[in-house]
Amino acid sequence: MTFEFSREAKQGMARAGVFHTSHGPIQTPVFAPVGTQATVKAVEQRELVELGASLILANTYHLHLRPGDDLIRDFGGLHGFMAWDGPILTDSGGFQVFSLGGLNKIDEEGVTFRDHLDGSLHRFTPEISIQIQHNLGADVIMAFDECPKPDDRAIVRGAVDRTHAWLTRCVEEHHRSGDLNRQALFGIVQGGIFPEMRAESAEFVCSMDLPGYAIGGLAVGESKPDMYAMIEHTTPLMPEDKPRYLMGVGSPEDLVHGVARGIDIFDCVLPTRVARNGAALTRQGRINMRNLQYATDSEPIEPGCTCYTCTHFSRAYVRHLVKVSEILGHQLLSMHNLHMLLNLMRELRAAILSGTFVEVAGAFLENYQTVRPEDQSTVFPIESV
Amino acid sequence: MTFEFSREAKQGMARAGVFHTSHGPIQTPVFAPVGTQATVKAVEQRELVELGASLILANTYHLHLRPGDDLIRDFGGLHGFMAWDGPILTDSGGFQVFSLGGLNKIDEEGVTFRDHLDGSLHRFTPEISIQIQHNLGADVIMAFDECPKPDDRAIVRGAVDRTHAWLTRCVEEHHRSGDLNRQALFGIVQGGIFPEMRAESAEFVCSMDLPGYAIGGLAVGESKPDMYAMIEHTTPLMPEDKPRYLMGVGSPEDLVHGVARGIDIFDCVLPTRVARNGAALTRQGRINMRNLQYATDSEPIEPGCTCYTCTHFSRAYVRHLVKVSEILGHQLLSMHNLHMLLNLMRELRAAILSGTFVEVAGAFLENYQTVRPEDQSTVFPIESV
Repeated sequence: MTFEFSREAKQGMARAGVFHTSHGPIQTPVFAPVGTQATVKAVEQRELVELGASLILANTYHLHLRPGDDLIRDFGGLHGFMAWDGPILTDSGGFQVFSLGGLNKIDEEGVTFRDHLDGSLHRFTPEISIQIQHNLGADVIMAFDECPKPDDRAIVRGAVDRTHAWLTRCVEEHHRSGDLNRQALFGIVQGGIFPEMRAESAEFVCSMDLPGYAIGGLAVGESKPDMYAMIEHTTPLMPEDKPRYLMGVGSPEDLVHGVARGIDIFDCVLPTRVARNGAALTRQGRINMRNLQYATDSEPIEPGCTCYTCTHFSRAYVRHLVKVSEILGHQLLSMHNLHMLLNLMRELRAAILSGTFVEVAGAFLENYQTVRPEDQSTVFPIESV
Repeated sequence: MTFEFSREAKQGMARAGVFHTSHGPIQTPVFAPVGTQATVKAVEQRELVELGASLILANTYHLHLRPGDDLIRDFGGLHGFMAWDGPILTDSGGFQVFSLGGLNKIDEEGVTFRDHLDGSLHRFTPEISIQIQHNLGADVIMAFDECPKPDDRAIVRGAVDRTHAWLTRCVEEHHRSGDLNRQALFGIVQGGIFPEMRAESAEFVCSMDLPGYAIGGLAVGESKPDMYAMIEHTTPLMPEDKPRYLMGVGSPEDLVHGVARGIDIFDCVLPTRVARNGAALTRQGRINMRNLQYATDSEPIEPGCTCYTCTHFSRAYVRHLVKVSEILGHQLLSMHNLHMLLNLMRELRAAILSGTFVEVAGAFLENYQTVRPEDQSTVFPIESV
């Protein structure tokens, strides 16, 4: 059934499942590459298929402004416009309004903001966000929420209240003008780094009968231990039989820690963004391909990796491309980095199915050097989850 | 036999043939995509194979400076370094020294110049250019020449004399330190737009027993009628049994006119460069994908085109990518533009083999709107060739 979430196995909080959409099943846990402007930067749609991406994300804020959601609707939604037949998720635009748009005015009704490129004035309300997402036609659409700085209690309080009021209006608008068999609306739990507000928000949001629920407002500046603690605190308060989506995460270690704490869906620009900065994700950690040590290195970025980049090109060649700013460098690193995360998720899923999640996740984290080594020692050991 | 040129058919001056290299045969006439820095910009090597590219070009000037030809030699030459198993051609670096490098000093011995990026001082001589090209290991390497402004008689005179003296030294150096079965050295005919100097240069250059000969110093600012006249004047002075290479050309119409005048090999950055500027090559002419008329256009760039871009994406989607400066726009347009030229060459070759070249070439030109329409009426009619 559309938007059914079949749970296949569980180990601790970690689950393996399948989320069914009208554009096919999504095997979870899953990482969704981000295609902000209806393209995953520097990666072709057929390459996303080759990489095994099953769900991709697109951004409502950007697409509403350019090329416009009316235009995309006329092309059969994002699926038709960008020629992607698989599942798509759109965010509500809220996060970008607050982070990118020149915020003009926020009131109980909605948000007025300026286009970050041309300065033109626009307005989002919960109803408008949902209507835009209907035009974009993604399989999963998100409630319009306020994503605040996570550590200011008063600000988070206001954001939680507004998020809840807006969720009610999003649900009403989706029921009024949407097609519930075609698009699944997910609610978003807010609450910053405050456990009691997270609990309150989880209770309210999950009281709505929705096909899935997200945790928002994390990975926005708080420490990794704080983030992991909030996930660990919140997921037990969310229903077992619905997919749980951690928005805007993440790095390889965050994916492992998220899965260990019961998250099913992730998205992040990280793999493609760091690629365009010349960095490769490997199982040993992130490496800067500009480093002189790779200049004469005939090994692939990750020996044994089965991606197009690693099966054909040396670190020396990729370094050369990065050093001379060739587009192919972006292409090869973006593909490799996406492959690394997508493959990691497949590996974690297989481990959950075979009952070896703790060993597999633990071995990965032990081998993986985070960018900030101080995080490594302070995170919860995987075994405790 | 390596570097044998088998002629298969001829119609007027137009020829169909096969040039044999140690990395496989090249069916001529052929267009060679340019991979200046050991990458055809925004196109993956497997995509070049898919597009049917048989010969690609790389630039000695750029690769000598970054990453260095010694490094490339240690990776098995360009074939190993960039993982391209097919034939490769390198230029001599001369053109870039004169056009890009901060030219410091030119004397009979060679040229001293500054790196256009870091200002460091370098020197090319005919011997050094050939040695660098030995390191790069391309199948076809080019003599070090001086490519002058084409319409100043005194300057062209000096350039022709220097080019001839340098050719002798290039041939000597290639015999001394090269592998004649692995790398074919082509000589370059200069002479600007002066018929008598073109004739003199063709006689001298073709008196050397080389596996192929090029026409240089065209498409550098002279009018199209002048260029076509020079090709038409020069090719009959070049041997029938060796491939003829027109350097740095070109546009779709120039390819047709070149083939009609007996050219076998072409190279140009045009298809990938105009792609990055947002333009598409079609059989009706070049179109600017930024134009508003494409905003809601659900047709592919070229209806009926079999490239990945046209079989999957609308003009509206490509326009969106171009307008918002997405890398995928460069990728999709580069692939389409290369496909257009490579396919045109296959079509011209088939026409020569079937004796329909005049009709096929004429029909193409009649349909094709050049960028500067005034050129269209002044070129020699294809039937006259």
